[in-house]
Amino acid sequence: MNEDKNIVIIGCGAGGGTAAQFARKTNRKAKITIFEKGKYPQYSKCGLPYAISGKIPKIENLIEFDKDWFAKSKIDLFLETTVEKIDTKKKKIYAKKVNKTIEKTYDSLIIATGAKPFKPKIENNDLDGVFTLRTIEDAKKIKTYIKSCKYATILGAGLIGLEMAENLYKLGLNITIVEALPGILSNNLDGDMAKIVAEKIPDKIKIFTNSQTTKVIGNNKISEVIIKNKETNSENKIPTNILIIATGNKPEVSLAKSIGCKIGNSGGVLVNSKSETNIKNVYAIGDCTEFLDFITAKYILVGLGSIAVRQAIAAGTNAAGGLYELPKGILNTSTSKFFDLEVASVGPTTARLNDYTVVSAHFNGSSLPDYFPGGRPVSVKVIVDKYTGMIISAQILGENAAQRVNTISAAILGELDVETFRKLETAYAPPIAPTLDAITLVCDIISKKLKR
Amino acid sequence: MNEDKNIVIIGCGAGGGTAAQFARKTNRKAKITIFEKGKYPQYSKCGLPYAISGKIPKIENLIEFDKDWFAKSKIDLFLETTVEKIDTKKKKIYAKKVNKTIEKTYDSLIIATGAKPFKPKIENNDLDGVFTLRTIEDAKKIKTYIKSCKYATILGAGLIGLEMAENLYKLGLNITIVEALPGILSNNLDGDMAKIVAEKIPDKIKIFTNSQTTKVIGNNKISEVIIKNKETNSENKIPTNILIIATGNKPEVSLAKSIGCKIGNSGGVLVNSKSETNIKNVYAIGDCTEFLDFITAKYILVGLGSIAVRQAIAAGTNAAGGLYELPKGILNTSTSKFFDLEVASVGPTTARLNDYTVVSAHFNGSSLPDYFPGGRPVSVKVIVDKYTGMIISAQILGENAAQRVNTISAAILGELDVETFRKLETAYAPPIAPTLDAITLVCDIISKKLKR
Repeated sequence: MNEDKNIVIIGCGAGGGTAAQFARKTNRKAKITIFEKGKYPQYSKCGLPYAISGKIPKIENLIEFDKDWFAKSKIDLFLETTVEKIDTKKKKIYAKKVNKTIEKTYDSLIIATGAKPFKPKIENNDLDGVFTLRTIEDAKKIKTYIKSCKYATILGAGLIGLEMAENLYKLGLNITIVEALPGILSNNLDGDMAKIVAEKIPDKIKIFTNSQTTKVIGNNKISEVIIKNKETNSENKIPTNILIIATGNKPEVSLAKSIGCKIGNSGGVLVNSKSETNIKNVYAIGDCTEFLDFITAKYILVGLGSIAVRQAIAAGTNAAGGLYELPKGILNTSTSKFFDLEVASVGPTTARLNDYTVVSAHFNGSSLPDYFPGGRPVSVKVIVDKYTGMIISAQILGENAAQRVNTISAAILGELDVETFRKLETAYAPPIAPTLDAITLVCDIISKKLKR
Repeated sequence: MNEDKNIVIIGCGAGGGTAAQFARKTNRKAKITIFEKGKYPQYSKCGLPYAISGKIPKIENLIEFDKDWFAKSKIDLFLETTVEKIDTKKKKIYAKKVNKTIEKTYDSLIIATGAKPFKPKIENNDLDGVFTLRTIEDAKKIKTYIKSCKYATILGAGLIGLEMAENLYKLGLNITIVEALPGILSNNLDGDMAKIVAEKIPDKIKIFTNSQTTKVIGNNKISEVIIKNKETNSENKIPTNILIIATGNKPEVSLAKSIGCKIGNSGGVLVNSKSETNIKNVYAIGDCTEFLDFITAKYILVGLGSIAVRQAIAAGTNAAGGLYELPKGILNTSTSKFFDLEVASVGPTTARLNDYTVVSAHFNGSSLPDYFPGGRPVSVKVIVDKYTGMIISAQILGENAAQRVNTISAAILGELDVETFRKLETAYAPPIAPTLDAITLVCDIISKKLKR
């Protein structure tokens, strides 16, 4: 690919940065420009909780591609630069860096504007000590602020909320988690599986589910939060020196909207498997987008860095004149680790499968044959479509949960039915894995249920 | 399934025992009888090397289902009983226990006679201190004998040879490995990958490849072996107190042959995906059989316990009146661990792909994102059919090699091409796995090669 092409990318997160990289790989002559509002080039947002605790020694370690890398790749990177307007007729964007306006013509435009933390309306939530966590700047502020803190309260028991809880717990803080829904990790796990994770969380960390934070109390600085159980209406006062709000994100789509990009029901820019929007030559990727769910074929918000990166590969390649098409939808393969328990999932939870008649099973196995010392628990739930027998989703807790989920992800991508998948030859050796793995044994149970 | 049926199984290894178990699960009323030559009911042969070193504390721990279990399941188990004759017209088998002859009528017969260690012709290989390893009895003898040994020589650098080498090394013995082929693990790995494994083996363990053992020397007891390099003809004298022969197995098919079962080119009974032989109502499973390779569609010897168990599920279920069909062939997913390096593979090595035009790539990645401390190497080779793009095989070394190979096994079973598989969404989280896993990154390289 050698044609001269202007590619403009708005946003230099994992999405924007990766898109630039793949545009460059695809087209050595293209002019590639990135505009990024923030101070830092491409870094790992997912690593922030671990940089706050010091598990990752320096926050700047999270920068995956620095300014030099972009310079070497001949990608023009404008940091602390805000795109103010896009003119799709002139194919021009207008950006502002301090007081200077920058104009840039594009042949292809990639919108990678990400998302903003969603802050529920709570009285006094602008006091000192109330934080959200999305950027390096946020992490730096939190890392400094917690030095004087004894009590941390975290709103939201999703992946990020729990990751923050664990990292702050390891720093010696007293932790309270407040979750509005009846269980933790409800985006990733069914209630029965989430319960097993909750049991692994040390008793010292208090978890209030079904609870809303109604008020932040303090003089300038936060000192307490008032929470209210949504069922019983009983209130609790939680001593709080720092409040971390981790109740999800809102796609940042104002620029996309301004040029007529179609926005979905969840507020994200609708994109297809080439990362194209409905506007010609305009791509969108990452947390500001909605893409189809592989199973339900419904648009869902893209909320995972791993998906953003894959969309970015598509957008960068296509914008530069190549051809890259993702699978027909998102699997939502995801993982994390809480207090040494690995948690992984792929596909919709049962709550998102109202339109389906499903059969599921849960199996508790071991990572090693019974006779070999050192085996650790592996707990697997698999959900299957009752009528087609196709594997829809899986939730795994324990040893190598993520790698085990990857195997089921491959099965879903390959549209294998449970009858075929349960006969998969998995690798066996006494020090490594049992003859029959929990991921296929659970499918034997489902197979039996289907034949009833 | 309630019909009264006589099921006779010859051999109570992992295959025979599992077949009995699934026959019982399928048919509560069936009369199930097992005849086993040896002293012990179903145990793990694969665990023997670890029981010799004491990693598994007692050799008897390897017994997975004991006599009581068979009694409770109402399975008649005859130990130390040799089947001498099968009469397919009368549907009768004749067995001998000490001097007593036992006659048994069958409706379905399952042959699970396993294999015998192959002992190459070497002068004096009947001296004390020369062993093969196949049974608990062998392991017990070796465990006692090594107490007085300082030097161990192992013939064969396959999985079992190397597992023995590591376990004896950990007991403090001086180890020499002698392999006739140019590299180690040639059944599982290509030369380039095997070399990486060889480099992980401590220098103190001497490996002679391309070498034959020509003579065993000793008075009653072995004291030395003479080995000869097949290229240079140079000879070496290796001080040896114990010689372990691990040069493969020969299927035990005399009974199957006697009733007209078709035998394949590698000496095993030919079976289909229902574990049926060519003789009506006669099934065969495990190391005494040949089944189709999933990729090449050629008959190959079954050499893995994991496959024996899967064939046994099919044979046991079908013999008892159920229906269970395995996939169209064997993937040969396998794994082991040598000196903390996990090794896993699926599908034929390049040497077995003469009839194919293949494209392969090798990628060295990490188990974690670069910024997260503690990442370990993951080295992946994938082989793809040049014309169809289908994934044929994979060889992985390093962190979670076995689980990673399982994901590729699922892709092969689902007949995914490399273009689809490389876009697989793998689970990502900083403490667990990188955004893009080595198993898909290697496929990106192959995709590029295919497009050239």
